[in-house]
Amino acid sequence: MNTTPVWSVDARTGDRTGEVAVEADTAAVDAAVRAAHAAQPALADRTLRAAFLRAAADRLEAHGEELIATADRETALGTGRLTGELARTTYQLRSFADIVDEGAFLDVVIDHADPKAAPAPRPDLRRWKVPLGVVGVFAASNFPFAFSVPGGDTASALGAGCAVVVKAHPDHPATSELAAAALREAAVAVGLPADVLALVHGRQAGVDLVQHPLLNAAGFTGSIPGGRALFDLAAARPAPIPFHGELGSLNPVVVTEQAAAERAEEIGAGLAGSFTLGMGQFCTKPGLVLVPAGAAGDRLEKALAEGAVDSPSGALLDARMRAGFLAGFAERAALPGVSVPVRAGEDGYAVRAGYLSVAAARLAEDAHEVLLEECFGPVTVVARYRDAAEVEAVLGRLGGNLTATLHAEPGEADAADLLARLTPLAGRVLFGGWPTGVAVAPAMQHGGPYPATTSTGTSVGGTAIERWLRPVAYQGVPEALLPVELRDGSVGVPRRVDGVLER
Amino acid sequence: MNTTPVWSVDARTGDRTGEVAVEADTAAVDAAVRAAHAAQPALADRTLRAAFLRAAADRLEAHGEELIATADRETALGTGRLTGELARTTYQLRSFADIVDEGAFLDVVIDHADPKAAPAPRPDLRRWKVPLGVVGVFAASNFPFAFSVPGGDTASALGAGCAVVVKAHPDHPATSELAAAALREAAVAVGLPADVLALVHGRQAGVDLVQHPLLNAAGFTGSIPGGRALFDLAAARPAPIPFHGELGSLNPVVVTEQAAAERAEEIGAGLAGSFTLGMGQFCTKPGLVLVPAGAAGDRLEKALAEGAVDSPSGALLDARMRAGFLAGFAERAALPGVSVPVRAGEDGYAVRAGYLSVAAARLAEDAHEVLLEECFGPVTVVARYRDAAEVEAVLGRLGGNLTATLHAEPGEADAADLLARLTPLAGRVLFGGWPTGVAVAPAMQHGGPYPATTSTGTSVGGTAIERWLRPVAYQGVPEALLPVELRDGSVGVPRRVDGVLER
Repeated sequence: MNTTPVWSVDARTGDRTGEVAVEADTAAVDAAVRAAHAAQPALADRTLRAAFLRAAADRLEAHGEELIATADRETALGTGRLTGELARTTYQLRSFADIVDEGAFLDVVIDHADPKAAPAPRPDLRRWKVPLGVVGVFAASNFPFAFSVPGGDTASALGAGCAVVVKAHPDHPATSELAAAALREAAVAVGLPADVLALVHGRQAGVDLVQHPLLNAAGFTGSIPGGRALFDLAAARPAPIPFHGELGSLNPVVVTEQAAAERAEEIGAGLAGSFTLGMGQFCTKPGLVLVPAGAAGDRLEKALAEGAVDSPSGALLDARMRAGFLAGFAERAALPGVSVPVRAGEDGYAVRAGYLSVAAARLAEDAHEVLLEECFGPVTVVARYRDAAEVEAVLGRLGGNLTATLHAEPGEADAADLLARLTPLAGRVLFGGWPTGVAVAPAMQHGGPYPATTSTGTSVGGTAIERWLRPVAYQGVPEALLPVELRDGSVGVPRRVDGVLER
Repeated sequence: MNTTPVWSVDARTGDRTGEVAVEADTAAVDAAVRAAHAAQPALADRTLRAAFLRAAADRLEAHGEELIATADRETALGTGRLTGELARTTYQLRSFADIVDEGAFLDVVIDHADPKAAPAPRPDLRRWKVPLGVVGVFAASNFPFAFSVPGGDTASALGAGCAVVVKAHPDHPATSELAAAALREAAVAVGLPADVLALVHGRQAGVDLVQHPLLNAAGFTGSIPGGRALFDLAAARPAPIPFHGELGSLNPVVVTEQAAAERAEEIGAGLAGSFTLGMGQFCTKPGLVLVPAGAAGDRLEKALAEGAVDSPSGALLDARMRAGFLAGFAERAALPGVSVPVRAGEDGYAVRAGYLSVAAARLAEDAHEVLLEECFGPVTVVARYRDAAEVEAVLGRLGGNLTATLHAEPGEADAADLLARLTPLAGRVLFGGWPTGVAVAPAMQHGGPYPATTSTGTSVGGTAIERWLRPVAYQGVPEALLPVELRDGSVGVPRRVDGVLER
């Protein structure tokens, strides 16, 4: 039996504050998945699981003070941010309850039998979606609530009717334990088995989880190497499973000459606020900003530098990220042609934000490729371009992203072409504004081409539920044996019946 | 340059009838994918691509006589079946044209900005789906039209706005060339570049295709080993791509005691018709049939045997399948406890159907595992069970399937439980009837848990188009810069606006 302790660490000091759990060994992971698998059928009742999601939100709010204090100690994200994140998380749980009640996600399609159909007679066919089974959720470092135990992957998977086994992130094990307990309590309170949600700790536990024969899908938020390793394991299984991984994103921003001329100070200050928000620990942080060479761009950089200098220092999530950020900044700053208008650095155990500036033409050099890779933490790279060809050259070197942003003036002739150019690069394309801040809304898309995401799904917004379902068609089944949602008459869910969409 | 000739072979004799093309080498595959990639933007116009799909159907009909004669020579499927298959194929193309016109598949979701939204102000967000890019289609042996060059994968990918490169199946290269020419002519006729559809031949061409950096997704219909090898290549790419593979299926059938008692002769005859249809070369062929021990089951087997003996002999698709079928039958027939009520065998170059019978309890033995694997061709396995526990033991050993069928009487107490038991095993669950014959209908689901399919998609029916799309959300984009489908007002496509579904 694995007795490796799991420590809670104070993110502001790096000190261990207590032993929270032990790492799950292979047998413990197996037990968790089997228990979830056994609990899974209880989630078939849509009314019950909507009630569960709402009860989970209520419990999290009831335990809010302790959750926020614990998360603040473990992540240093601050009680203000964490209060907002918890509100976002409970809103998300309740949103999925509404989605479960509405039933549109079931994608019901009914075709009545038509013996005279051309080119061939048609049997009675009724299609809807059923839960995939047990889902593994790999929690994120940077959102101890919204992308962790009670986060969007969990909420959407439970909403789909899947039991969930969460692999906790080592940055916030105590928060994870508290949140898992709240969710399990909520399950029991509404009459579901507690094991519809389980929690495991430890790196090997994650490896065991994604390979477990009874796991049917996984969701992941984290780094490109870690996510790719798990994706590869998921794909190499005897029976491969869907792996929805959000791995990393540079989130390019293009500022046109005209936008810089009109709004240099606003854009510079906005960029400073966005790349330092949450100490730059957002997957949507703008990491590469294409700014015109010349006077307007200079004004933009001046405002950016002022904002960066003014932004308060702060602790990063953990010591590894701290080291990675400092080393990543230094590596980039040392490249030929890269200037360092604001140097990042240490402030005791905390760090200060910084930014780099480089001629866009340099980004065509292989040695500078690292500037096109995400560096977690409060750093961004400004690339100064002289013409449209240089913008195109940089964009042509980018992989997939969660977001891409255009700052242009509405009447600009090139704006439409630039938006069209950014669309293949990202899952969310912004006109103005900043990509940090991901609204929980039906139209959100938080997921983009690889490596941003390993699938075409989204991990935020109502359609996140689609990732955990598969369609099943029933042919010739008597009405009495069909799920109520597939029977004739008014059953309260939107459907397509004989080709016609019904509300 | 590869100069390996591609031969057209007469399926009824095994004789080469002509050299059709040469295999595509790496450079040729690269050229095809690049040409498709360059042609792709022209498909952005929905009206144009709907017109293209209809023009493609028209051209195929115009060339119908030559297509059918060529396919009949290459596959021996018979002009009757092939006439029906071509009708199904043109119907499918036109159905996707209607789907493209309707626009529901764009999944448009609009959330207007709401500065007062809780828990956070919401920006204007408008989400729809965009084509993934160039799609590789790996054609099937057994449907020279409906699952090949002009088949469902191609039609749905073109409908989604993706250019297509088809890897021809070696069983019907001449048919493939004719069909590709018809589609390319249709493209040009409506004003699209011909290269929205390309055709390549050769095994290595398929390997090159799935690994090409500009390929964005693939569809496949074929064997488990071949499909898994390509799936593995798709997953191992630097940037993995979706691989929608339909690999193989046993298509289990459960006949209850009561159904056998009431309808033994009807079920036996129906089964004989289904497993010998098209010389057993359907992915939905019922390959394992659970029949009760005792008198009613004996009557069923008697009818089955009569039907099997009466079914005409015929040529299989190619010499490899012929050899595989004969060897597969012999291997299964030689197992201890397996009886051979009707022995399959040779009839000149043609083959005769046969079936095997075994006590269900024997299927628990590892040596008999091959009976739970698909054997392509006119063979099925009847497993005689004594009680519900034996049925459950067999079902518990099955992997995923395209279909699962229950023959029960409507009033039977166990019918609901049996349907629920079959649902996790398949993508389509039938009550009565037979799984062969896959209706092209909105509610069809042709795809099931692995190894039946490598994804949760379907390759038949309207929702097949979903496989070739990814969502993009636009945030804060002025209306004039948005695609018309995302603008305010009535734009003629179904949408969800501010949470409300609109027709």
